[in-house]
Amino acid sequence: MGWDNWNAFGCSVSESLLLSQARLISSLGLRDIGYEYVVLDDCWSSGRDANGSLIADATKFPRGMAAVAQEIHAMGLKFGMYSSAGKYTCGMYEGSLGHEQSDAHTFASWGVDYLKYDNCYNQGQAGNQLLSYTRYKAMSDALLSTGREMLYSLCNWGEDFPWNWGSTISNSWRISGDVYDSFDRPDDRCPCDGPDAFNCELPGFHCSILNIINKASFIVSKAQPGAWNDLDILTVGLGGMTDAEYVTHFSLWAAAKSPLLTGADFTKITPKTLSIFSNAAVVAVNQDPQGSSAARRWHKTLANDTNQWGSPSQQQMWSGSLNSTTGDENDMVVILINGASTAQKMEATLQDIFIDSGTGNTAPQVKMAWEVRDLWAYRMTDNEARYIISNNNTVGYNGTSYYYNATKTSYAEGLQNKEELLLGKMISTVKPSGTVTATVDRHGAAMFRLRAVPTGKAEKREL
Amino acid sequence: MGWDNWNAFGCSVSESLLLSQARLISSLGLRDIGYEYVVLDDCWSSGRDANGSLIADATKFPRGMAAVAQEIHAMGLKFGMYSSAGKYTCGMYEGSLGHEQSDAHTFASWGVDYLKYDNCYNQGQAGNQLLSYTRYKAMSDALLSTGREMLYSLCNWGEDFPWNWGSTISNSWRISGDVYDSFDRPDDRCPCDGPDAFNCELPGFHCSILNIINKASFIVSKAQPGAWNDLDILTVGLGGMTDAEYVTHFSLWAAAKSPLLTGADFTKITPKTLSIFSNAAVVAVNQDPQGSSAARRWHKTLANDTNQWGSPSQQQMWSGSLNSTTGDENDMVVILINGASTAQKMEATLQDIFIDSGTGNTAPQVKMAWEVRDLWAYRMTDNEARYIISNNNTVGYNGTSYYYNATKTSYAEGLQNKEELLLGKMISTVKPSGTVTATVDRHGAAMFRLRAVPTGKAEKREL
Amino acid sequence: MGWDNWNAFGCSVSESLLLSQARLISSLGLRDIGYEYVVLDDCWSSGRDANGSLIADATKFPRGMAAVAQEIHAMGLKFGMYSSAGKYTCGMYEGSLGHEQSDAHTFASWGVDYLKYDNCYNQGQAGNQLLSYTRYKAMSDALLSTGREMLYSLCNWGEDFPWNWGSTISNSWRISGDVYDSFDRPDDRCPCDGPDAFNCELPGFHCSILNIINKASFIVSKAQPGAWNDLDILTVGLGGMTDAEYVTHFSLWAAAKSPLLTGADFTKITPKTLSIFSNAAVVAVNQDPQGSSAARRWHKTLANDTNQWGSPSQQQMWSGSLNSTTGDENDMVVILINGASTAQKMEATLQDIFIDSGTGNTAPQVKMAWEVRDLWAYRMTDNEARYIISNNNTVGYNGTSYYYNATKTSYAEGLQNKEELLLGKMISTVKPSGTVTATVDRHGAAMFRLRAVPTGKAEKREL
Amino acid sequence: MGWDNWNAFGCSVSESLLLSQARLISSLGLRDIGYEYVVLDDCWSSGRDANGSLIADATKFPRGMAAVAQEIHAMGLKFGMYSSAGKYTCGMYEGSLGHEQSDAHTFASWGVDYLKYDNCYNQGQAGNQLLSYTRYKAMSDALLSTGREMLYSLCNWGEDFPWNWGSTISNSWRISGDVYDSFDRPDDRCPCDGPDAFNCELPGFHCSILNIINKASFIVSKAQPGAWNDLDILTVGLGGMTDAEYVTHFSLWAAAKSPLLTGADFTKITPKTLSIFSNAAVVAVNQDPQGSSAARRWHKTLANDTNQWGSPSQQQMWSGSLNSTTGDENDMVVILINGASTAQKMEATLQDIFIDSGTGNTAPQVKMAWEVRDLWAYRMTDNEARYIISNNNTVGYNGTSYYYNATKTSYAEGLQNKEELLLGKMISTVKPSGTVTATVDRHGAAMFRLRAVPTGKAEKREL
Repeated sequence: MGWDNWNAFGCSVSESLLLSQARLISSLGLRDIGYEYVVLDDCWSSGRDANGSLIADATKFPRGMAAVAQEIHAMGLKFGMYSSAGKYTCGMYEGSLGHEQSDAHTFASWGVDYLKYDNCYNQGQAGNQLLSYTRYKAMSDALLSTGREMLYSLCNWGEDFPWNWGSTISNSWRISGDVYDSFDRPDDRCPCDGPDAFNCELPGFHCSILNIINKASFIVSKAQPGAWNDLDILTVGLGGMTDAEYVTHFSLWAAAKSPLLTGADFTKITPKTLSIFSNAAVVAVNQDPQGSSAARRWHKTLANDTNQWGSPSQQQMWSGSLNSTTGDENDMVVILINGASTAQKMEATLQDIFIDSGTGNTAPQVKMAWEVRDLWAYRMTDNEARYIISNNNTVGYNGTSYYYNATKTSYAEGLQNKEELLLGKMISTVKPSGTVTATVDRHGAAMFRLRAVPTGKAEKREL
Repeated sequence: MGWDNWNAFGCSVSESLLLSQARLISSLGLRDIGYEYVVLDDCWSSGRDANGSLIADATKFPRGMAAVAQEIHAMGLKFGMYSSAGKYTCGMYEGSLGHEQSDAHTFASWGVDYLKYDNCYNQGQAGNQLLSYTRYKAMSDALLSTGREMLYSLCNWGEDFPWNWGSTISNSWRISGDVYDSFDRPDDRCPCDGPDAFNCELPGFHCSILNIINKASFIVSKAQPGAWNDLDILTVGLGGMTDAEYVTHFSLWAAAKSPLLTGADFTKITPKTLSIFSNAAVVAVNQDPQGSSAARRWHKTLANDTNQWGSPSQQQMWSGSLNSTTGDENDMVVILINGASTAQKMEATLQDIFIDSGTGNTAPQVKMAWEVRDLWAYRMTDNEARYIISNNNTVGYNGTSYYYNATKTSYAEGLQNKEELLLGKMISTVKPSGTVTATVDRHGAAMFRLRAVPTGKAEKREL
Repeated sequence: MGWDNWNAFGCSVSESLLLSQARLISSLGLRDIGYEYVVLDDCWSSGRDANGSLIADATKFPRGMAAVAQEIHAMGLKFGMYSSAGKYTCGMYEGSLGHEQSDAHTFASWGVDYLKYDNCYNQGQAGNQLLSYTRYKAMSDALLSTGREMLYSLCNWGEDFPWNWGSTISNSWRISGDVYDSFDRPDDRCPCDGPDAFNCELPGFHCSILNIINKASFIVSKAQPGAWNDLDILTVGLGGMTDAEYVTHFSLWAAAKSPLLTGADFTKITPKTLSIFSNAAVVAVNQDPQGSSAARRWHKTLANDTNQWGSPSQQQMWSGSLNSTTGDENDMVVILINGASTAQKMEATLQDIFIDSGTGNTAPQVKMAWEVRDLWAYRMTDNEARYIISNNNTVGYNGTSYYYNATKTSYAEGLQNKEELLLGKMISTVKPSGTVTATVDRHGAAMFRLRAVPTGKAEKREL
Repeated sequence: MGWDNWNAFGCSVSESLLLSQARLISSLGLRDIGYEYVVLDDCWSSGRDANGSLIADATKFPRGMAAVAQEIHAMGLKFGMYSSAGKYTCGMYEGSLGHEQSDAHTFASWGVDYLKYDNCYNQGQAGNQLLSYTRYKAMSDALLSTGREMLYSLCNWGEDFPWNWGSTISNSWRISGDVYDSFDRPDDRCPCDGPDAFNCELPGFHCSILNIINKASFIVSKAQPGAWNDLDILTVGLGGMTDAEYVTHFSLWAAAKSPLLTGADFTKITPKTLSIFSNAAVVAVNQDPQGSSAARRWHKTLANDTNQWGSPSQQQMWSGSLNSTTGDENDMVVILINGASTAQKMEATLQDIFIDSGTGNTAPQVKMAWEVRDLWAYRMTDNEARYIISNNNTVGYNGTSYYYNATKTSYAEGLQNKEELLLGKMISTVKPSGTVTATVDRHGAAMFRLRAVPTGKAEKREL
């Protein structure tokens, strides 16, 4: 979890940008919610010195990169940087291909904690798994050889099936071309649009939220603790989508266990944006100790509803296992996504939700009753968010607070404590063989946590 | 033929599990029907010792693996184990990539008779035939170098066309992602669903019976004696399908000459499950000396019938050559699969059944008459199966017995003897240019053996 | 041009088979029509001797292979043999992979004139162009190193785009899986059926005539003198198709410049089969000195006509340039294929026929008039064919003879001489901007040669 | 920009052809409009000399190639040549594979300024990015080693994703098979037709204008200054298309920043053809200093309009950023393409045009007003073009002249000077959130430059 400057600022990077945004991450309470990594993306370098070492652009970073890292560390945050497994970065700055050892040590010496490693100008070293693996492993080995712990984030846009080989050399891998700030607009530069495109020879960019959700649905099982499918930086707060669409975007990214990197400009943050980022109940799903991604259980193409781009609208249902907060059965996250052009009543049966525990009627969970808890019910109010933004401080708000401080009480602890802010608001109980229902906004998502209702007969079962 | 613990027990493996299940394999008569290999799947190891040799988990296997093998051998069964052609196994235990020689000798020293060799964490060494061939050949060579005969079962999920290169280095190769216990439910994690998907870049898992049948249909000719298409462990008895669906599943696996590895928990076996596994007439098709897979002759997408997942239902007809039991023409197995949501009358013409002997009207078999024998007619009764389960013994049942003991009389011998239990029940004769008809249950299969009706003129023809 | 034993005899090969068929090739006049190569396919070997040299099966070839070659040469024919670029041949006999030098010299020493080189058991050395090229080039180099001229026929079923790399190392390359004796029956074992499948990851076998025609249509331009697209052995005469279907099959193979290898059993040849093979006007198209393949100009999927397999029927029009027989413009071959279930009137405009000379109305040929000559009009009568078959002799028939002897007068000469048997029967003239029309049988083909009608103004134009 | 002889003359090359066409390029004013490179395509060689150096065909080039280069240089033009990264060129002349150093030095010694480097007979060295990259890099290195500046134009027909690896070794790369002179006729030899085919395993040839436009749409972002997507030589003037179709062709090639290589025979040039090539407003878009390709914003398949080949007609809208000519916002090029069979009114909203500046309503440009300037309004009149052709001179025409001399005033300067000929004719103003509309001919294109309307509040914004 953290922030990356790319989506809001692109190449306009500088020490002052990073530090001012970092201060806001802290003062807006986002650090304490869990957004820890401040990631400097492309365009920071001015080439290599006589020894071949990368040098930070002296205009943008007048005191050098180590000074930036030090200040960020001093705020209780971590510092991420960017390079590319190619001759150049995507912005045509120096790339690290062939310089892995040198560059890894440079990053380590600067106090870097995270590396996003891109794929541009890779000199034809792509197109099969072994070429890509070997190219990305070179930097993995280099990072390890520095002795400094740095998260390693592959950014090869899902080329050559990184979900097959990424987990032994990295912490995450992008699964698609770059996201853009649209719910479902198709763009020719991000082909393979639609619910059945599980692999794409041209990753492209300008990929919509729904495009990436669809691509993720086929490979959810590849995510595991310490090695995640990366659905790309969040576009929440950029302004191109409705609040309901951003809610869908954030819900699904969280449930798919994608790294949550915010991409907004915090100097202009709105209450709605802050209250999405600050929704601890949803973040708790993302940070769940079990670390298993939700999976799509079904998707429907609606016969009588067309989106504004002329394609039939879609609906989807996702669910996934979460650590138990009842001491009994595992909890379950359920998401209903409504791609239709109007609000719709949607339903998810227990049988579909728990399909991974057994087909037909064999899943024991189907025969149980479940609390249904709304994970968006305790979203911070606009008033509270406005207060925090105005005062640059999460303390002192006079209304009912929905702010959660994970630095004080980790999500794991909070869940153990059954903190209501994390569990969500109980809205109903679903009976054995029953159905979870919700009326879902146009392009919105309903997101629930199911918790087993204890019965006299209940016993602990091994999975 | 045998049993693998994965489908019912996953990672919950132990000496006691294997031995108790093995005892049931024996006492339920399954060993004598032909289920010989007891296969321990993933999660049995606790790493490597100082010499780099794999060690069995001392908690799960307190007496070591050789002791397990010895006891299994003492029951007249054979012992199979599991590893992966990768850094780790799929369950994140030690893999054998780079340790082939050492691990093969460890397996041999333990008395192992069979190796299932998986594909997880293969370090990018996949994506073309030569990489996969080379990786799997390393273990093939290692197994051969031990001097101990061990069946070698490739489990790379059909990646890189193993049917093209597997036969010279192994005994079988998986052709798809992992099966799950559903007749036709599509799951996004097993893409390439539908009757026309002959190759899939993402093998996935949660593949339905029909999904795997469809994938098999394109490559049936690759099966040959000693080198088989593996359609994955049977899910019969797991509880997610109807009896008719399990009958279809078992019938097709048998006719496709897939290795028949049961996957049930024998401590909870039902009469219906036992009577499927014990159907000697169907097993005899699987074990037919000719060793040629049945092939799909046609499939139809029904215009007016939709399955519960919203897709058009399918029907299929398969047939395949069997050794002659008449001393004249080869016998023929015919399967009619009804994917419709209700029972349907189905038909198979002799011309379609014998298409491989000639197109148009050139197949001489079309001009002959044939006995039609129902291969499910002599399925053990519930009463007999219940008796065997209750008494842990195949002997002593008072009713008419449909139990076959292949240890006493091999399938080859039994067919030569024209044993009715193996030939199936004669239900009709089809005339020259005629049609085999059957009313087939929803999601069920009719399975017949055709035997040439002798005529005065008949002579032995060379194929 | 020649004969290959596979389609009619499969593995049942022997000296007596080859020599008896060769004698019929000669006595039926087929040698003099141009069928020169007698090709022994798979299953002839009994392994390797102590020096690693291939040995002919002594039972099937008691006098050795050199004796067979000698007798075949003595009949004025040439001798072709078979091996595979793999560990084994497709029939599991010894393959030549790794034995290229040795085997090529063995073939040369036996007096072999042609090698068909198959693709089975290739040890994973396939899946990209360089692997396949390198594997097939090894035998090419070996054949050249013998100093004996041998045609080299690649049989890798179109894998890895042999049309891209085959022409510099061989004389022809197969473009699909094995043909079978059906006009349009789809078979799951030959996927990629239909008019738009230009490349297939699974070549398979049991490919229908229309399946192969469709696959050929995309790569016709790859054929060139001395390096041809091979559409596989003809099935004409095997009995599974109608006469009209065989006419289509033969017409298209000829126009696509595929090697014409007959595959029938000449001891049972029918008059219809002989008169197809003997149609000199069509063979002259195949042997045209220009050596450029006809190309598909359009194909139509018929809205209201379904074939017996439940798919919409197709119609196609092909045309291609031939050497001029008028001293002016090049001649043109035109084929109309009717895949519909009844006879249909079909049309081909000059604009479509001559599209390669210019789009819109820019092709000068469109503004000219053309003789239309029916290339099937001078097909030998049943009576003449019956006479030849009965008398084992092409001489002495009393009726009007349509027999052509290309040994006496080559096709090139015969065309220069404007021999009517080669030019076909003039049936009409098509005016400038006009249309060629024909009523075409169900599954049949009309095939015409267009010849420029001289005008006062006509001048020789450079292409 | 320049001229290549292939489309009009194919293999019929000679010194006299090149020099006579070059003189016309100069005298028709095309040189001064920017067409600078005279490119000699295939078929110029007669092999290699004893040192392995390529030799020019002495019949076609009696004074040698250096003399040709010298004369072309003397006309103020540059000289391009052709070879192939294969054993042979496509016309079966000597190829440069394995001779890169030698041939590059030969070209340099002759005074060559540009190399088109083809892909025929590449010996299996294709099929993955690394093979193609390595093969093409060999010539790149060789050219650089000569010390002579030569543009390097890859012609591997889009195989192996050259847009991924071409930019670091070359100046342009072809993206498809060869163009032919048709707006939308499908040809089996150029498969992957239609708006969704973003990659094609068989590049083929005979690709229509619309086929190539569609293929380009997915990779427009790969174009960058000095490294361009090459859509192939223009067919304008060959005669197979209507004037409206040629206008579409030229407009899109210009906006996609494809190299503009004319392909006509200038001895037969028509006024219409000359006035397309001479349209400075469109050429200025192609030569815009920003160097970013326009992108397709939407395409529509028309429900009720079918083209003459039986497929549904398409409409498309493209737009792209241009350098500002207002000192404020960037200008924008907009193209509306009408593939329908009749003239149609078409619309482009500012929101779609400026989608790259922000989704939803976030693009600030949508809230502005824009001048709409017709880039085809100042196309040279037929009278002026006829005058130039008749007089072989651009000077002296008495009517209003639309001729632009970029040698005198570069496009960059001309745009800075706000020359009306480059800016196009102002036809309307579009209001904030408004729509650009045009009635577009059958198969025609409307092409506009949008220029920001200054407002009191306007400030310079950084992108």
